Amino acid sequence: MRPSGRAPDQMRALTIETGFTKHAEGSCLISCGDTRVLVTASVEDRLPPWMRGKGEGWVTGEYSMLPRSTHTRSQREAARGKQSGRTQEIQRLIGRSLRAVVDMKKLGEHQITLDCDVIQADGGTRTASISGAWVAMRLAVNGLLASGAIKEDPITAHVAAISCGIYNGTPVLDLDYDEDSAADADANFVLIEGGKIAEVQATAEGATYDEEGLLRLLRLARMGCDDIFKAQAAAIK
Amino acid sequence: MRPSGRAPDQMRALTIETGFTKHAEGSCLISCGDTRVLVTASVEDRLPPWMRGKGEGWVTGEYSMLPRSTHTRSQREAARGKQSGRTQEIQRLIGRSLRAVVDMKKLGEHQITLDCDVIQADGGTRTASISGAWVAMRLAVNGLLASGAIKEDPITAHVAAISCGIYNGTPVLDLDYDEDSAADADANFVLIEGGKIAEVQATAEGATYDEEGLLRLLRLARMGCDDIFKAQAAAIK
Amino acid sequence: MRPSGRAPDQMRALTIETGFTKHAEGSCLISCGDTRVLVTASVEDRLPPWMRGKGEGWVTGEYSMLPRSTHTRSQREAARGKQSGRTQEIQRLIGRSLRAVVDMKKLGEHQITLDCDVIQADGGTRTASISGAWVAMRLAVNGLLASGAIKEDPITAHVAAISCGIYNGTPVLDLDYDEDSAADADANFVLIEGGKIAEVQATAEGATYDEEGLLRLLRLARMGCDDIFKAQAAAIK
Amino acid sequence: MRPSGRAPDQMRALTIETGFTKHAEGSCLISCGDTRVLVTASVEDRLPPWMRGKGEGWVTGEYSMLPRSTHTRSQREAARGKQSGRTQEIQRLIGRSLRAVVDMKKLGEHQITLDCDVIQADGGTRTASISGAWVAMRLAVNGLLASGAIKEDPITAHVAAISCGIYNGTPVLDLDYDEDSAADADANFVLIEGGKIAEVQATAEGATYDEEGLLRLLRLARMGCDDIFKAQAAAIK
Amino acid sequence: MRPSGRAPDQMRALTIETGFTKHAEGSCLISCGDTRVLVTASVEDRLPPWMRGKGEGWVTGEYSMLPRSTHTRSQREAARGKQSGRTQEIQRLIGRSLRAVVDMKKLGEHQITLDCDVIQADGGTRTASISGAWVAMRLAVNGLLASGAIKEDPITAHVAAISCGIYNGTPVLDLDYDEDSAADADANFVLIEGGKIAEVQATAEGATYDEEGLLRLLRLARMGCDDIFKAQAAAIK
Amino acid sequence: MRPSGRAPDQMRALTIETGFTKHAEGSCLISCGDTRVLVTASVEDRLPPWMRGKGEGWVTGEYSMLPRSTHTRSQREAARGKQSGRTQEIQRLIGRSLRAVVDMKKLGEHQITLDCDVIQADGGTRTASISGAWVAMRLAVNGLLASGAIKEDPITAHVAAISCGIYNGTPVLDLDYDEDSAADADANFVLIEGGKIAEVQATAEGATYDEEGLLRLLRLARMGCDDIFKAQAAAIK
Repeated sequence: MRPSGRAPDQMRALTIETGFTKHAEGSCLISCGDTRVLVTASVEDRLPPWMRGKGEGWVTGEYSMLPRSTHTRSQREAARGKQSGRTQEIQRLIGRSLRAVVDMKKLGEHQITLDCDVIQADGGTRTASISGAWVAMRLAVNGLLASGAIKEDPITAHVAAISCGIYNGTPVLDLDYDEDSAADADANFVLIEGGKIAEVQATAEGATYDEEGLLRLLRLARMGCDDIFKAQAAAIK
Repeated sequence: MRPSGRAPDQMRALTIETGFTKHAEGSCLISCGDTRVLVTASVEDRLPPWMRGKGEGWVTGEYSMLPRSTHTRSQREAARGKQSGRTQEIQRLIGRSLRAVVDMKKLGEHQITLDCDVIQADGGTRTASISGAWVAMRLAVNGLLASGAIKEDPITAHVAAISCGIYNGTPVLDLDYDEDSAADADANFVLIEGGKIAEVQATAEGATYDEEGLLRLLRLARMGCDDIFKAQAAAIK
Repeated sequence: MRPSGRAPDQMRALTIETGFTKHAEGSCLISCGDTRVLVTASVEDRLPPWMRGKGEGWVTGEYSMLPRSTHTRSQREAARGKQSGRTQEIQRLIGRSLRAVVDMKKLGEHQITLDCDVIQADGGTRTASISGAWVAMRLAVNGLLASGAIKEDPITAHVAAISCGIYNGTPVLDLDYDEDSAADADANFVLIEGGKIAEVQATAEGATYDEEGLLRLLRLARMGCDDIFKAQAAAIK
Repeated sequence: MRPSGRAPDQMRALTIETGFTKHAEGSCLISCGDTRVLVTASVEDRLPPWMRGKGEGWVTGEYSMLPRSTHTRSQREAARGKQSGRTQEIQRLIGRSLRAVVDMKKLGEHQITLDCDVIQADGGTRTASISGAWVAMRLAVNGLLASGAIKEDPITAHVAAISCGIYNGTPVLDLDYDEDSAADADANFVLIEGGKIAEVQATAEGATYDEEGLLRLLRLARMGCDDIFKAQAAAIK
Repeated sequence: MRPSGRAPDQMRALTIETGFTKHAEGSCLISCGDTRVLVTASVEDRLPPWMRGKGEGWVTGEYSMLPRSTHTRSQREAARGKQSGRTQEIQRLIGRSLRAVVDMKKLGEHQITLDCDVIQADGGTRTASISGAWVAMRLAVNGLLASGAIKEDPITAHVAAISCGIYNGTPVLDLDYDEDSAADADANFVLIEGGKIAEVQATAEGATYDEEGLLRLLRLARMGCDDIFKAQAAAIK
Repeated sequence: MRPSGRAPDQMRALTIETGFTKHAEGSCLISCGDTRVLVTASVEDRLPPWMRGKGEGWVTGEYSMLPRSTHTRSQREAARGKQSGRTQEIQRLIGRSLRAVVDMKKLGEHQITLDCDVIQADGGTRTASISGAWVAMRLAVNGLLASGAIKEDPITAHVAAISCGIYNGTPVLDLDYDEDSAADADANFVLIEGGKIAEVQATAEGATYDEEGLLRLLRLARMGCDDIFKAQAAAIK
């Protein structure tokens, strides 16, 4: 049995509150159970140097946990003077995941930065960040289309992410912190609406798993992401 | 006339929502108009090295603005690898202000860290941080008293902060961003209930002012802080 | 057709030269085609602080590319003052992969650091690092067993890694640099002898793939790793 | 009674030795009792990026204490790899204070950097830095006027700074180190000749004070600054 | 007697293997006994800012020791976030030494970076780096001449380096690690073919020496460098 | 002819003013012509970790140039966040030079830090630092002897340093900035009273020199250091 009493294929309650901050071109607060992430999408005309002059845009992600988003307080990365390897790994994942559903030529010479700041953590912060970032990006791109800054919609599909794992020998969907700490294997899936995979990051912690196990996790993830796609669609209405 | 249409001695709407996050020993979301700051109070038994073994505690503050809390996106300090001078100055101010109303002997060997993260900025983020930090600290100390970890209340009084300035030649209370950018003089007051001053930081930008001007700003600040003391008291009920 | 003329399931020539440096407790130079990585295993009695006093050991990895291991010179990370996100991500992967086949209790209070320094890069440097690190670790552990410092062999199995990808629509094994730059999807598999998976990191670059594609890549990887297991066994004879 | 035997409104001996170093466009060694600060004014044509092309100039300050300017040796900030929050706060104060008496349009596209290096510290280093910086800046601007690089004098008035505090319940002028460590309240005033205030930074340490206390400190500061204005005028003769 | 059994004026076996890596414009692996350094020469059209537009080139060196090139593992400088004083001192020496035999006008606007990475250390790593760097630079310049990128050979002579020291009271040539740790005095000589000196760095450790001692070391160094010049010439044939 | 009109073997005016600052255990301001360096010696009981518990002491040096000690302003190293290679090289040289004349056992478990801060630079700052550091150290050690903290004098001899060079083909003593910028060869000698050498650092810039040239520079240096030994002796009287 799962600590939360959920069924193996049961996700936590998911809510997406758009327009959470007023300055950003797009923003939302996404909650997956007790995990809450504030995502803002900022549109800038300034591209990174290696992207300039190609008539294309860029999408990138940044990620941070507030010092007391966790059970015990962590030192602020700005005070430590550097971002941890974990933070950088997650930032790179967010950027790649969103770029998988954007046509950079249609975006034109704009950069969209997706800032994902974890207000409260209870497992699955990187996957919630990706699912919320799609919503913030969608809102920002809507603004670019409405203002005429771009002519064609550069977003080709929904993208969402969810974690799955093998907990007490059973594949389960949407790990919370208690499960994540104790899981035998842990996998993050970034999926695109229509059955395509953007990214798989599956790690055995302690135990290892086989092809069959990987497939069962992937199928759970597909169920979860289908629900997230619906929640995203509802949020941007 | 003020851009917001407020009277010279009129504060913005102030709300304090306690318990905004579940992990911290105390927390609140304080809103002063469109300025919103999430404050958490974390209690730890680990003191800074120079405080250990004295039978006393310590209170310190940290401050950060989310990258898109402002009109245009700022680079993340963790990515830049260092905190700005402004950030460090504000952090030091928050810590000093709260320590002015804490009896460190009664706090015992506990450290309270007040993390002030600006979700949305519209002027007055440092003063909102201080006013909110008092609430988060009060809640955390209540927990220490309830659990018997400390015997006597170490908090001696309310402390609150507000900015005032000379805008178009008129002293005004609680500057918002538009006023702050254009003010002739700008002062932050940290006041203690009962008429005492914890800190004054008054700067002439462009123009300068005299003793009379300073006094008029101080009197406005006193009015503002009296209202904040009431809002703090209501929030912790 | 592949740029190198290889068949889709054909690996590059693999050689493992043990004892490449004299100071390390274990070392090898692993070559996968033109990719060459020098791996050393260093055994120390000093554990990271959070591991001390548990009667267990630790295995960790570090990774670096020499500045001119690549087509054009890259700035030295020590001169830049920080390790890139990519470097940190790879270091974390190396450590996790090796730990998947070590029983930390049997290792006792020893730390093994696997330093993977890329002498020449032609794609697949992180997977070559993992495959070579197993050999260097095996040699270092043999030394601990021979000296009586530990009593039981803590290594539970071989671990090896290989990249696969979808190149021009065809799943191919062991991407070189030319293929890696142009592949539609790119996956690194860390596999354990006997059919278990330690880690999957699969990313769609440009295009996306589906469950069927993922499985075909996994099966190619299994063929490749079986060959690497044999080369590892031969090298330590 | 004050440890030094001074009357409450008595400043320490003040000397300003101009031309202390030969390379700088302006320089002085200012001594306030045992506090000695070397100030140089450097004129450059290179402005910070955000100031360029406006036809205006900029004035900025830097501050450092030599490692053994204090009772016990402090670690060199260059060796620690970063400037402390205190250093940055003081640097910002020096820059703001001097800019309060400079007309940036008349300065033209020149930047003046005021380097304040504390040779020996005995309290009041930041206020001595400001008072000395005015002299160094005055000398540098005289050079610009003499060479015809600028046509009109951009300096509008004298600016000087002094600390005051409440020591053993009595407001006193110009705190030395022994008083500063023990004072109940501590305030730095930056005043402009003619009765205007550029900056007030007043902090209660331990005790707090009220409006009356603040005014009494301000009046002491006015007396002190009037003496410094005279010493500045004599020095540049 | 020397620990290695060598005669006082006997160098260790010296080998220079050119073309050790395929991407660099010039490369070699130089071995002096058990000291092995991989040197690559990278040619770039991008000059440091202060060298641009003069029609001249630049030659610079970088140096690093692999973490386990030494008896015990050293922390990676990229992980520590800065290069040690020793590393920077050696880098500066390598650059100066090579520049002593290059005519920058004939090199044209090209920068040659000599990366010296110590694979295995047994004393004399900085001198081996210089001797090997000449070979790598020679190969890279041959390529520039062959391609017509430059017209005249900018290299004016061979340069080589060797360490000498006073060991147990006797001047000896080419110190290995055991001798280096115990030597009374230690000197590195960078010599140019034809009897000229590019650099002398002679340090007394523990004991001191006199003019006569310095001369005896210099004469040993001359013998050693003559042998290195021959080995360099043979390597580039 | 030398720009300054000095004879080839003529040093600049040398003055050593002891007791320049009041907090340090020893201090002096050394002037060699227009080069002026403030040196303080700080005695601490805290040794670096690797020296503790051996019953021995340690002597170390630190070096910095004030930003406007030079013709044009240099960026402050504390603001840049790291010390340059040149600074670190000089710091290491100062430490080694002073340690050459100290018996660490007689010093007992004390650390002496010699802070050399260049107030004004006109060539020869590192050699002036060493010559002045001996005086500051001598004064600090006198204090240790007077207080009974140590029983026997650990200083075995005077040490001093001077630069020489080949200027317009002529060996000259004590280069000033104009000569240093234009010299063909440049050498720093650290000599011990009685004819011994502590350190030689000789570099050919542009041209190269031979054994004869090196000897002539060494002989000039000996003359110069004999004069410095006398000035040191006079200063500490």
